[in-house]
Amino acid sequence: MDSAAPLAGSLAIVRTVAELRARVRIWRAGGERVGLVPTMGALHDGHLSLVARAQEDCDRVVVTLFVNPKQFGPNEDFARYPRDESADAAKLGAAGADLLYAPDVAMMYGDGFATTVTVVGLTDGMEGAVRPGHFAGVATVVAKLLNQAGADDAYFGEKDYQQLAVIRRLADDLDIATRIHGVPTVREADGLALSSRNAYLTNDQRKIAPALQRGLAAAAAALAGGAAVQSTLDAACAAILKAGFDAVDYVELRDAYTLASLSTLTRPARLLAAARLGKTRLLDNLAVDPR
Amino acid sequence: MDSAAPLAGSLAIVRTVAELRARVRIWRAGGERVGLVPTMGALHDGHLSLVARAQEDCDRVVVTLFVNPKQFGPNEDFARYPRDESADAAKLGAAGADLLYAPDVAMMYGDGFATTVTVVGLTDGMEGAVRPGHFAGVATVVAKLLNQAGADDAYFGEKDYQQLAVIRRLADDLDIATRIHGVPTVREADGLALSSRNAYLTNDQRKIAPALQRGLAAAAAALAGGAAVQSTLDAACAAILKAGFDAVDYVELRDAYTLASLSTLTRPARLLAAARLGKTRLLDNLAVDPR
Repeated sequence: MDSAAPLAGSLAIVRTVAELRARVRIWRAGGERVGLVPTMGALHDGHLSLVARAQEDCDRVVVTLFVNPKQFGPNEDFARYPRDESADAAKLGAAGADLLYAPDVAMMYGDGFATTVTVVGLTDGMEGAVRPGHFAGVATVVAKLLNQAGADDAYFGEKDYQQLAVIRRLADDLDIATRIHGVPTVREADGLALSSRNAYLTNDQRKIAPALQRGLAAAAAALAGGAAVQSTLDAACAAILKAGFDAVDYVELRDAYTLASLSTLTRPARLLAAARLGKTRLLDNLAVDPR
Repeated sequence: MDSAAPLAGSLAIVRTVAELRARVRIWRAGGERVGLVPTMGALHDGHLSLVARAQEDCDRVVVTLFVNPKQFGPNEDFARYPRDESADAAKLGAAGADLLYAPDVAMMYGDGFATTVTVVGLTDGMEGAVRPGHFAGVATVVAKLLNQAGADDAYFGEKDYQQLAVIRRLADDLDIATRIHGVPTVREADGLALSSRNAYLTNDQRKIAPALQRGLAAAAAALAGGAAVQSTLDAACAAILKAGFDAVDYVELRDAYTLASLSTLTRPARLLAAARLGKTRLLDNLAVDPR
């Protein structure tokens, strides 16, 4: 049928759209529900929680591994982004995933590639401001991956909350039939959100890193208790810096769904932050609900 | 199953994505191949040739009718674009189409719609220069319609040749599984390419209109005979104006596939032109092959 080679137990790896579709077609023809977990590899327990959630909903789970050059800026970490396909495949095999789709750049962006998917509004500010072009790269590759797989459901982490909102929007706007699900962030015991970029942290930075989550949690508690928004965000920013972060890119309160900026807590909201430890940017976010 | 009402013989009309997908799902589950013919209505024999071609390839043919506001500029003819759904439905019923999908603007662009599909390169010059934003509107709505229907095949006229190239590109780039087919232009006896916009022409303008095709045909013959490109294009432009057109927006020779500008005829090419009769813009194009 195709050239997929078994590896790490029963996990097969395919590298072409044709092979991916052939697998999914067979499963769907047999009445099986197929879930998709797009990743850039460097898999950790956060990714595996997406796989586990997909397994709850679906009969088959496809994980994609593609470090997408279009979502990295010229001065970002595309070249040094951690890559270890064998280790990733072993983790996915152990987790019981059914297929790893790992295309190369030429498969994703062939000769003459000329199309970009952009989402306005949701991409204003926060990561969109710090990383120009980032969300166009994300939206384009996610539209492709969703169309390539034709899965019933797809799973993304709440860890990248603005990204999740952008993906929900583009899938809805472009009528991609796959349902988009957000999955809660997985954290270390000290509260640090799992991220492939945590691997960049020195031991000293690693000790400082949980201060980002602590700052957000304190701000969320204050806001839920009725504190004023701007002074609370300013205090969170100061606390994160005081704990040892080198810079805070933003701490913002946004509508949980539209990501509209909020100056008062009148509806379900999200606190989102990004801060820098040396050259490493860490992101985190928490839900905040009005009383 | 759905609220589709039969009309014009056996032709059903649906207005929601859910109804459209339910119909297509049933057909595909039964092993039937489904063809899609996207239109803006005001159907003429050119559209019906798309339906006929789809019927050759497919078991079921779905025609879409949506006058897409996003592909009209602020000073263009969106408001006065000809609309007659009953007449269109009657023609499609007589032609044996299986389903008319006629969504309204709210179905296509709901609250919070924020996504745009853009294609670079192919959209440079010609219609892209004369109509800023036009191809982003086309690419976005076509991506949506293709994803909404999930058809096996989709059919577009060569009459809008640059548009066809843009659609091929975006469908390939976004991995939309539907195959894109171009269908040759249908012409009146005097050579005028069928177009919904021909309805805008006065009797006098209608007599002048075939000069666009005659100018292109003469240029194609000259180029195929070895004539120099720029002087041939200039002569075609002059001939079209002399015949009574009020302005020529462009007459260009482009690579038949990439639409790269050609200064010599060294590979399969396309002559493309747009010219104005009063407020009406007419488009046409012809193949030109090197000797």
